[in-house]
Amino acid sequence: MQKPLILVSNDDGIDSRGIRHLVEVMSGLGEVVVVAPDSPQSGMGHAITIGNTLRLTPTDLFPGIDSYKCSGTPADCVKLAKHHVLKERKPDLVVSGINHGSNTSISVLYSGTMSAAIEAAIEGMPAIGFSLCDYGSKADFTHTLNYVEKIASEALAKGISKGVALNVNFPKKRGEAIKGIKICRQARAMWLEKFDQRVDPNGREYYWMAGEFVNFDKGEDNDEWAIENNYVSIVPCQFDMTAHHAITQMNDEWSI
Amino acid sequence: MQKPLILVSNDDGIDSRGIRHLVEVMSGLGEVVVVAPDSPQSGMGHAITIGNTLRLTPTDLFPGIDSYKCSGTPADCVKLAKHHVLKERKPDLVVSGINHGSNTSISVLYSGTMSAAIEAAIEGMPAIGFSLCDYGSKADFTHTLNYVEKIASEALAKGISKGVALNVNFPKKRGEAIKGIKICRQARAMWLEKFDQRVDPNGREYYWMAGEFVNFDKGEDNDEWAIENNYVSIVPCQFDMTAHHAITQMNDEWSI
Repeated sequence: MQKPLILVSNDDGIDSRGIRHLVEVMSGLGEVVVVAPDSPQSGMGHAITIGNTLRLTPTDLFPGIDSYKCSGTPADCVKLAKHHVLKERKPDLVVSGINHGSNTSISVLYSGTMSAAIEAAIEGMPAIGFSLCDYGSKADFTHTLNYVEKIASEALAKGISKGVALNVNFPKKRGEAIKGIKICRQARAMWLEKFDQRVDPNGREYYWMAGEFVNFDKGEDNDEWAIENNYVSIVPCQFDMTAHHAITQMNDEWSI
Repeated sequence: MQKPLILVSNDDGIDSRGIRHLVEVMSGLGEVVVVAPDSPQSGMGHAITIGNTLRLTPTDLFPGIDSYKCSGTPADCVKLAKHHVLKERKPDLVVSGINHGSNTSISVLYSGTMSAAIEAAIEGMPAIGFSLCDYGSKADFTHTLNYVEKIASEALAKGISKGVALNVNFPKKRGEAIKGIKICRQARAMWLEKFDQRVDPNGREYYWMAGEFVNFDKGEDNDEWAIENNYVSIVPCQFDMTAHHAITQMNDEWSI
């Protein structure tokens, strides 16, 4: 039987530790091809490169594995992989990550990691984004790897609903083992920004954005709850952004 | 009675024609403040500036109106406007555009115009993104302006559901008048990419992304149908990306 074809990308850049872990696990499940950004793309959301050129360069970072670094965004990487690198071969699974930092709740919208997965879902490929809720430069990924394998194997075996990409977040490593997996909805939470105003050496003002994450959600069926309680969270995500309930309301109430 | 406070942004940049039209119409409806990118940000999706600084500079582009250009993305502009420029004053309406080009269907995900509106919705402000389905550099916006006024007035009068941003698209100007407004769902369509491979003067390869828009949707209740049939389309959009139907399916079928 032919091995499944697995495309790997991320948003922290092709030289990050998280993607090395992901490639290692995926190599046990199938034939791996890597197309990932040549520089960090955190917070890039679903950006694509319009009005500018793209570079795609083979690398030797992963011995025995076809890998390419791309000058674009995570969504660009998936598009280039599908339409140029892989051409006629369609991946059985697209995985992105493992991200150095949380992509729970509203962060899914800002996330480059998830934009690669969602782009893959738009293009009809089963896709998963993996993130570790630990921003530390020495973050320990070891407790996540069995779960990465389990979730990817299950996706290969059972499939993922058409048009759905999975947003998987892992809790930071603690004294106790992860308790299990929860299928969740996106928590109702947001980033509350503060802007740190400074003056450059030429006397001109500039700003640093500094966000504080605020969770308004009181439920126990959401990804924030799962992570806080030492579970792996999986949120199935779709790219139809229509607020269907609001169509009825507008048709009723608006006079236009 | 105090005039409503209206924040205006866009993704084509503060010096584009579309935002001038929008500021003109909004000035008839309330007190206007402009915070918009200092350079084109098309295709930026919901990108934000992490790990880099932001500049915010007052401009005199709009006589009698407070306006600022920002070095960041459309989502950065809304965050800076809310938390720094306007501080205690909360806008009654946030509008973005008028975009030079379509943001129907799946383009809502890649759209900088809509990212400003969706960021505003996340932050609890009623928001509308306006786009004209005409990419021409001399695109005529005149047939849209009455509709922009009508839709913004209705939003101020009736409100927009919490957590919802409106994605408004206008058909390109034709020989006949626009037929009216349709409240729509996002059409099932996608961009099919082709990559044009070229060689630079130093002999190194590079790529241009060139997409072709493909509409799979056979319904008549979607934004693509509305635009094709010379209606204004309004899609109410939400930022909860959870595919709720897939939660049940995964809980049933997956063994994890």
